Amino acid sequence: MTVRILILALMVSSIAVGQESDSAVARKIFTEALTKGQSYEMLEYLCTRIGSRLSGSPQAAAAVEWSKQQMEKYGFDKVSLQEVMVPHWVRGASEYAVIVNSKAIGSREVPVLALGGSVATPPGGITANVVEVQNFEELEKLGKKAIQGKIVFYNRPLDPTLINTGSAYGGAVDQRHDGAKFAARYGAVAAIVRSMTTLHDDVPHTGSMGYDSVGTKIPAAAISTNAADLLSSLLKADSDVQFHLELHCETLPDIKSYNVIGEIKGSEFPDEIVLVGGHLDSWDVGHGAHDDGGGCVQSIEVLRLFKALGIKPKRTLRAVMFMNEENGMNGAKEYAAQAKAKGEKHIVAIESDAGVFTPRGFGIYSEGDGLAKIQKWRPIFEDYNVYQIEKGWGGADINKLKDQGTVLVGFRPDTQRYFDLHHTNSDTFDKVNKRELELGAATMAVLVYLLSEYGL
Amino acid sequence: MTVRILILALMVSSIAVGQESDSAVARKIFTEALTKGQSYEMLEYLCTRIGSRLSGSPQAAAAVEWSKQQMEKYGFDKVSLQEVMVPHWVRGASEYAVIVNSKAIGSREVPVLALGGSVATPPGGITANVVEVQNFEELEKLGKKAIQGKIVFYNRPLDPTLINTGSAYGGAVDQRHDGAKFAARYGAVAAIVRSMTTLHDDVPHTGSMGYDSVGTKIPAAAISTNAADLLSSLLKADSDVQFHLELHCETLPDIKSYNVIGEIKGSEFPDEIVLVGGHLDSWDVGHGAHDDGGGCVQSIEVLRLFKALGIKPKRTLRAVMFMNEENGMNGAKEYAAQAKAKGEKHIVAIESDAGVFTPRGFGIYSEGDGLAKIQKWRPIFEDYNVYQIEKGWGGADINKLKDQGTVLVGFRPDTQRYFDLHHTNSDTFDKVNKRELELGAATMAVLVYLLSEYGL
Repeated sequence: MTVRILILALMVSSIAVGQESDSAVARKIFTEALTKGQSYEMLEYLCTRIGSRLSGSPQAAAAVEWSKQQMEKYGFDKVSLQEVMVPHWVRGASEYAVIVNSKAIGSREVPVLALGGSVATPPGGITANVVEVQNFEELEKLGKKAIQGKIVFYNRPLDPTLINTGSAYGGAVDQRHDGAKFAARYGAVAAIVRSMTTLHDDVPHTGSMGYDSVGTKIPAAAISTNAADLLSSLLKADSDVQFHLELHCETLPDIKSYNVIGEIKGSEFPDEIVLVGGHLDSWDVGHGAHDDGGGCVQSIEVLRLFKALGIKPKRTLRAVMFMNEENGMNGAKEYAAQAKAKGEKHIVAIESDAGVFTPRGFGIYSEGDGLAKIQKWRPIFEDYNVYQIEKGWGGADINKLKDQGTVLVGFRPDTQRYFDLHHTNSDTFDKVNKRELELGAATMAVLVYLLSEYGL
Repeated sequence: MTVRILILALMVSSIAVGQESDSAVARKIFTEALTKGQSYEMLEYLCTRIGSRLSGSPQAAAAVEWSKQQMEKYGFDKVSLQEVMVPHWVRGASEYAVIVNSKAIGSREVPVLALGGSVATPPGGITANVVEVQNFEELEKLGKKAIQGKIVFYNRPLDPTLINTGSAYGGAVDQRHDGAKFAARYGAVAAIVRSMTTLHDDVPHTGSMGYDSVGTKIPAAAISTNAADLLSSLLKADSDVQFHLELHCETLPDIKSYNVIGEIKGSEFPDEIVLVGGHLDSWDVGHGAHDDGGGCVQSIEVLRLFKALGIKPKRTLRAVMFMNEENGMNGAKEYAAQAKAKGEKHIVAIESDAGVFTPRGFGIYSEGDGLAKIQKWRPIFEDYNVYQIEKGWGGADINKLKDQGTVLVGFRPDTQRYFDLHHTNSDTFDKVNKRELELGAATMAVLVYLLSEYGL
């Protein structure tokens, strides 16, 4: 009995000491990030000196070189480039879109952005009647007779009653991604889509789209939510309203680019890799500040915090800037393929690609007990107002590691403002709050520390 | 045994039904707030049509009339004005502050705001040597000989390592509030204080201050954090650097104003009052958007949500716009005094006065088991990402009800951006996010609903 009590006492005390020590490390990490953090200065350079970084652009190339030098400057053990071929789509001259000759208001130019990957309109543009639909079922019901020769207008809004705006986005984005593909099957000449935001404003949101590999490719663009509301109301009164669309975009041959990988070698289990990353490419509008410059600089900052605080991780840490998340995922695919080929063991991968607002938690995908293990550390995070450690899906880039048994962790910041900015000219450096960015980096660094200490 | 199981089963099922029903009401409240909410439109009017609303100003009077009409328009059972005399301080012509003839950079004008309640400088201003201190202990140690005839410069920054910025503010604001009072005791001719923010920028932050009731009153002003850093670095190299300060502010005779009170009568316990409020006055800079126009429109919105959804509260609900929180608290004092005189029973009072960012929870002061009772409802709030239901202090206005046994609840939004804006020209309508504002109103409405159903 006394022995059992003794053992119990020892266990409790070792847990207590362990926890205290982890909490103390967490406190050091937050203090360093909030007082000497470098994520904000890094992001300022990436956003205001380099700018938006669509795959294949000169800015994407500059960002590759910059992030490599940045990680070398911080003295990571190894910094390398991983070659990958990426799509090279260019927007060309500004788009032009007009509601034509409506009975109520005459003609009205509306804010528009081509979707990434769209083909151009013929020179001079397309002018056609408009068919508004809310979803693909409506499209199918209307059929070829109603659609042929027309512009299909997808106008289902994001559901504002969902608390996490990402869920609202997820419930609407099929219109943007697959709208042109399906409309083309019914003979439409173009597709326009309501911008993916709960805001009612004049800012169009671009984003990825896909075509059928065979068949006609029709131009596709997003119009602002105010423009979508206007067009919809005009169509209700007058179904003959026409729409004019001019896109000048073009897909050039694939071009060579790189993932950028920084590494700190693990002292005890160097073969077990803890990855933290974001994507270095962005859309070609704004600065790609929240999406995903912020996630990149946070990932670099996580490893820098280890260096600055002299923490030697037991497992190997990698900061990975994935290339081409926005329009191809080629960087993520290449990274996962090479990891598999080399037999690398990524025990866990964390991605910050949901904006860099105040950290709220992590969304975790694990086929084993990874979620439960991470949830046990929740008390450490609660000291920093981070409560949501829940089942989730990970992130677009890291999910390519899913079939290698890697536990996938999506960093979850506050979501309310993200889709005000996402894929727009408004996603600029000034929209990022320094403390929120730093708190996110520190939150991830603490998780990386715990994972590198205890594994999964 | 079977009877016990039966009773247990009945208890469990009634709890389950009760919870489900409360959750369903919560869902309705959030849906209404996010789809047909009126807080944002109200705030736009209050901020951009009326503007900043310092006690005694014409704008404060306009805000009283506007909020009364607004609540009448929504059909609350009773809307009334509660007369209260308030201080009437005016800023006068713009302040002017200059670092004078430093050896390193010559003279440099710096951003400055008089503190609320400060006396003016003599015509032409004050020019004097500067003594920098971090706290009152340093001031005392320096003593009259070192301070006499000089300008005392309080330069202790907010602690950036604290996660809740309110705590950082609380740890520094004594310099602003009491700096002039203490400096005057040692013969200083003026006091300047580093602005109360963790940012390093050019925006001065005003705020309240107090004088000794007898003795000399010296002018007091806040300079921007960048200016404070500059002045401090110049003083390190050259202790003879002088500072020139011109303030044109003035305290006029007290003037009549009002608290504005809207009420929905309780159907079962009309004598038990559940109060939700904010303060209608603001500083005379910016729009007073986050501080505290947002809290006012959220409070009105809480009662409007009950009307819109046809929910008849069992207890009486009051939305109270307190007057004069910023520089006197006279509205809160009057409200509490009248409540006491009339024998009114405020079972709980909720205040939104910490900005209108994404809701994180409530900080609760209760001498009984109020905190524990409210914490039992936490699962309902977690559906809306609201986790922090913790011990707290309430709010400045509602705290005047403390000695009447009222449970005090401070609404807690995310704190990271608040002190970027607090008491500055930057606290404008465009800094408020519509969804964040609406989520806050809905979160408080759900708590008000539960309190009105179950009491405390």
